[in-house]
Amino acid sequence: MVKIIRPTLIVDKEICLRNIERMAKKAAEHNLRFRPHFKTHQSLKIGEWFRQFGVEAITVSSVQMAEYFAGGRWNDITIAFPVNILEIENINRLASEIKLGLLVENTEAAGFLAKHIKSPADVWIKIDTGNYRTGIEPHEEFLIEEVIKQVKAGKNLTFKGFLTHSGQTYSAHSTDEIFNRHFDALLKLKSLKQNFSNQFPDIEISIGDTPAATLCTNFKGVNEIRPGNFVFYDLMQQNLGVCRFEDIAVKMVCPVVAKHISRNEVVIHGGAVHFSKDSITNIDGKEMFGRIIISKNGEKQMLDQMNYLSKLSQEHGIIKVAHNQFQYFNVGDLIEIIPVHSCLTANLMGHYYTNEGDLIGMMTKF
Amino acid sequence: MVKIIRPTLIVDKEICLRNIERMAKKAAEHNLRFRPHFKTHQSLKIGEWFRQFGVEAITVSSVQMAEYFAGGRWNDITIAFPVNILEIENINRLASEIKLGLLVENTEAAGFLAKHIKSPADVWIKIDTGNYRTGIEPHEEFLIEEVIKQVKAGKNLTFKGFLTHSGQTYSAHSTDEIFNRHFDALLKLKSLKQNFSNQFPDIEISIGDTPAATLCTNFKGVNEIRPGNFVFYDLMQQNLGVCRFEDIAVKMVCPVVAKHISRNEVVIHGGAVHFSKDSITNIDGKEMFGRIIISKNGEKQMLDQMNYLSKLSQEHGIIKVAHNQFQYFNVGDLIEIIPVHSCLTANLMGHYYTNEGDLIGMMTKF
Repeated sequence: MVKIIRPTLIVDKEICLRNIERMAKKAAEHNLRFRPHFKTHQSLKIGEWFRQFGVEAITVSSVQMAEYFAGGRWNDITIAFPVNILEIENINRLASEIKLGLLVENTEAAGFLAKHIKSPADVWIKIDTGNYRTGIEPHEEFLIEEVIKQVKAGKNLTFKGFLTHSGQTYSAHSTDEIFNRHFDALLKLKSLKQNFSNQFPDIEISIGDTPAATLCTNFKGVNEIRPGNFVFYDLMQQNLGVCRFEDIAVKMVCPVVAKHISRNEVVIHGGAVHFSKDSITNIDGKEMFGRIIISKNGEKQMLDQMNYLSKLSQEHGIIKVAHNQFQYFNVGDLIEIIPVHSCLTANLMGHYYTNEGDLIGMMTKF
Repeated sequence: MVKIIRPTLIVDKEICLRNIERMAKKAAEHNLRFRPHFKTHQSLKIGEWFRQFGVEAITVSSVQMAEYFAGGRWNDITIAFPVNILEIENINRLASEIKLGLLVENTEAAGFLAKHIKSPADVWIKIDTGNYRTGIEPHEEFLIEEVIKQVKAGKNLTFKGFLTHSGQTYSAHSTDEIFNRHFDALLKLKSLKQNFSNQFPDIEISIGDTPAATLCTNFKGVNEIRPGNFVFYDLMQQNLGVCRFEDIAVKMVCPVVAKHISRNEVVIHGGAVHFSKDSITNIDGKEMFGRIIISKNGEKQMLDQMNYLSKLSQEHGIIKVAHNQFQYFNVGDLIEIIPVHSCLTANLMGHYYTNEGDLIGMMTKF
């Protein structure tokens, strides 16, 4: 075991492997290509854990991340972010080295790409099925047709199909709503596919979100899933009803540095530069940044929701503690915190330790 | 100039120097020791810019940051975070190498420190003047006395005085309120000093926040100021009335990747992993993550508040654009964004470029 003296991100390899295996099996059962999103862990070492389950194709969220993983023997990568035409040199280098998938959602980028790409690349059209972030709305068939035309004009480009990220499942208020939103997204994509199937009989559909990929069982017409967060899960997913606490593979360990009994608060070293500032709403209506696990008589115990990470500044975290638990926190203790959003926490921490004390590196953003 | 193709943090050295000079002059005029907080920039190179204004003593927010700056010839460092007793080995190493200042706010840490510190160190007692994050409340004189007793028992420790971070000025609703909160904090600290002045005639007072350090003019009885954010300022400070837009020294440059006219939105590469998720409330009552500067006919222009960074996911940023400005955004453009919280943005970006294209490194957190 590594000696922990400051905020440290611990990853449980066993839980990760279980999460990966479960998703890989599900993909296989539904005849889906499993192209996991690696933006959650951003780590070559953790990436290797996917290979034993047959994973060969991956998703990333930036050109830099594609370069990082291409350097680690990943030869089939989709960059699930609208093509940034300013990065054309890097895109060309990648396309010459690996099987590269790109996303377009407008004629400007599609036209530019068709003209400037120098090696073969697959192109997906990003469809907005209700997340309202990026993508063409399904009813804009004229625009979709224009974009396809641009893609077809590029002799190195292959129009691959329609891709969506149904991020709207993250704001669902129940698992039923996740099912409904997933079903709605599928309907939109399948009807689109139908409308273009005469021209393009081999058109594919790729979907992405962890909530639907975890919970839903209807994937008819889908060719590929690209979930990412499932490898770690987090408090947000647990709160959504997508995973159990036992499925969460990352925890922050933080030292207690102060106690303030007058307001039932404990101060830890662990702040916005460690956790990020994503929060969920606690049962008391307040912002919550993490759930708390402490040791009592040598046994680990997760405290109830009235004990939670309630405030973050740059380096400080404030834990609201129920009065009857206050005695169990001591200056110098290490406590565990389940983070709200594992992707952003991992991104900030920049590295992991396993339970066995092995250091696991991540991509450096330079 | 460096060729920008992806989210890039630009620092304007001239503005920084002006900000540092102004604060250094103010400190000199009021006979205050100027011990700037380096957690905002976290950079040896930017640290050097302070030296020409006579800065020799600095503040940091973690032991790791102290180690980083100690490695860059900073020999007088206060770690403005309650002592984490688990880091005693690192603290001892630092204390043997530089003039080290430490903060305590409870008997546990003070007692531990007294027993285990092996080289001389200064100790400040952290006082909570109304921020309710860390520190002993001024009326708890019995506890303060207990902590002093512990400190005095440590033969290597020197009790230095009372230190506060009046973070409550950040939540003020007017500059008047900043003045009031600063004055209130001063009153508390001075009365505390008075009560202990028989025992400790050389007791010092150290205060820290950028809003009061920038705006206020009453520093009677104060020995030291430790502002940090002022070197860059940001949208939060401008919004508080603490600085002007012209005083903000950092900007993010981000590429436009998509436009959605149906909802007057522009999508940039630039998300939570670049900006952090700190926000302020815009005039429309919505969360705002940054103000927008674009080029019109070759001239830079800051758009009004109806054009703003309105949403962030991991890599995406969504800009709400007023209808009459929409035509000025094009796929492939680079736009500038004034970040809400420069400290967290810099921490995430990990490096800067100057306007002249020089790369400026930062501390790596490993």
